[in-house]
Amino acid sequence: MSSTSPALTARYGAHAAPADVALTPLIEQLLAHRSVRAFLPDPVSDAQLAAMIAAAQSAASSSNLNVWSVVAVRDAGTRARLAEFAGGQAHVRDAPLQLVWLADLARLRRIAAQLGRPSAGLDYTEMFLTGVIDAALAAQNAAAAAESLGLGTVYIGGMRNHPQEVAALLALPPEVFAVFGMCVGTPDPARPAAVKPRPPQSVVLHHERYREDAQDAGIEAYNAAMARFYDAQKMNVHGSWAVHSAKRVAGPESLSGRDRLVEALHALGFKLS
Amino acid sequence: MSSTSPALTARYGAHAAPADVALTPLIEQLLAHRSVRAFLPDPVSDAQLAAMIAAAQSAASSSNLNVWSVVAVRDAGTRARLAEFAGGQAHVRDAPLQLVWLADLARLRRIAAQLGRPSAGLDYTEMFLTGVIDAALAAQNAAAAAESLGLGTVYIGGMRNHPQEVAALLALPPEVFAVFGMCVGTPDPARPAAVKPRPPQSVVLHHERYREDAQDAGIEAYNAAMARFYDAQKMNVHGSWAVHSAKRVAGPESLSGRDRLVEALHALGFKLS
Repeated sequence: MSSTSPALTARYGAHAAPADVALTPLIEQLLAHRSVRAFLPDPVSDAQLAAMIAAAQSAASSSNLNVWSVVAVRDAGTRARLAEFAGGQAHVRDAPLQLVWLADLARLRRIAAQLGRPSAGLDYTEMFLTGVIDAALAAQNAAAAAESLGLGTVYIGGMRNHPQEVAALLALPPEVFAVFGMCVGTPDPARPAAVKPRPPQSVVLHHERYREDAQDAGIEAYNAAMARFYDAQKMNVHGSWAVHSAKRVAGPESLSGRDRLVEALHALGFKLS
Repeated sequence: MSSTSPALTARYGAHAAPADVALTPLIEQLLAHRSVRAFLPDPVSDAQLAAMIAAAQSAASSSNLNVWSVVAVRDAGTRARLAEFAGGQAHVRDAPLQLVWLADLARLRRIAAQLGRPSAGLDYTEMFLTGVIDAALAAQNAAAAAESLGLGTVYIGGMRNHPQEVAALLALPPEVFAVFGMCVGTPDPARPAAVKPRPPQSVVLHHERYREDAQDAGIEAYNAAMARFYDAQKMNVHGSWAVHSAKRVAGPESLSGRDRLVEALHALGFKLS
């Protein structure tokens, strides 16, 4: 059951793949994940969507509160608007299905009101965070399910560039927030996506206690691995992964409008106490 | 490829399972998820842990920033302290492995400083949220990987009851936050866990636009399904799922200390601009 595999080598590069890994077909499938941004126009069937949602609902939910929802968008006009809101991403427009994953406190607010019960706990940042986590766990199961069906996906964090506009377009009630989108469709075989290398496990995995300096050698190796990846993919990326990442968090102007997130959440009815 | 399955029936009950679902072995595995809180003392091997982390790293990461980390805790003393912090949960003490999943902005803060570059983007709530989402996607892949290896898991949201104490125990640097824990181990066959029913898909899945009133029939059906589940499991739960859930969000006193989350995050160095 323990061995190396081509999927591990693709994920870490030849020199940084862990030597002894317990593998299963499911793990091999997860290792082979790649973000797909080029789709055929073929629709995603209702049975495929039902499978993704059933997988999503099978993820853990904090105290079984189920404080998440999802909007399945197939309408081409709505997809085009979402693509604009997300910074003009063509694959949001072109993928036959866009799943917009929601942190949803409105359902429990409404249920409590119908029961004549208080729900002031929903005013707290903790419950907003619970909704975000519930939505993320659900979405990741859905992504894995989709890939097992031969579909491709890519997460769309750009859904947070204009949260109020997304909420208006999808008729979200107060206290419902689009955490991210997800393009779903059949990958275009003419434009295949590559498995992106990740840092060595020593960068993200700590034993017993966190250690900052234990990450340095792995980060250096990762910069080299990503340089080789950019070259192999003929991607025109300047600077190392470290430089590229530092640029992405340089300041509010590098956040694509998401520096105004708290303001937008308040406008959407979240108290964030 | 499309059919119903025993796993679907367990997840939704006999009457609420979607009729036409595209199934794969991976999807069947995800559908069979249950939260395990009773473990044998057998250790989780390094090869199993390496597989969980490789799966975790294969999940999507926003802009490949990898703003998450995880601490693997096997030390019995540390597990006992974490169990106390999480509200006295015995399974946190007893599971042979506790994975504490972290939103980690410290790595990029340090990388930017080493490069002499600004990193003011990390001051924003958006980047904190990105860390939480990255950690959640990673953790869910790890959970699925663990189950495929015959291990059981349960998420521990109680890690947010005392964020500063958890951070001190695990030596987390500023701007690193324990989003949740995860017990991992071999399920005790003498104390098997059940698959928990979820609401019908009509409660969480919307088409094209969000509709509040479309959820009502499904919520009513779910209250009945959960009442049957509580009975069958001989669980002493008073009131419907709706009442149970409303109680959980009644007010700050029902949040197990997590009403102070923003204060704790500020103390941990997150600016949350």
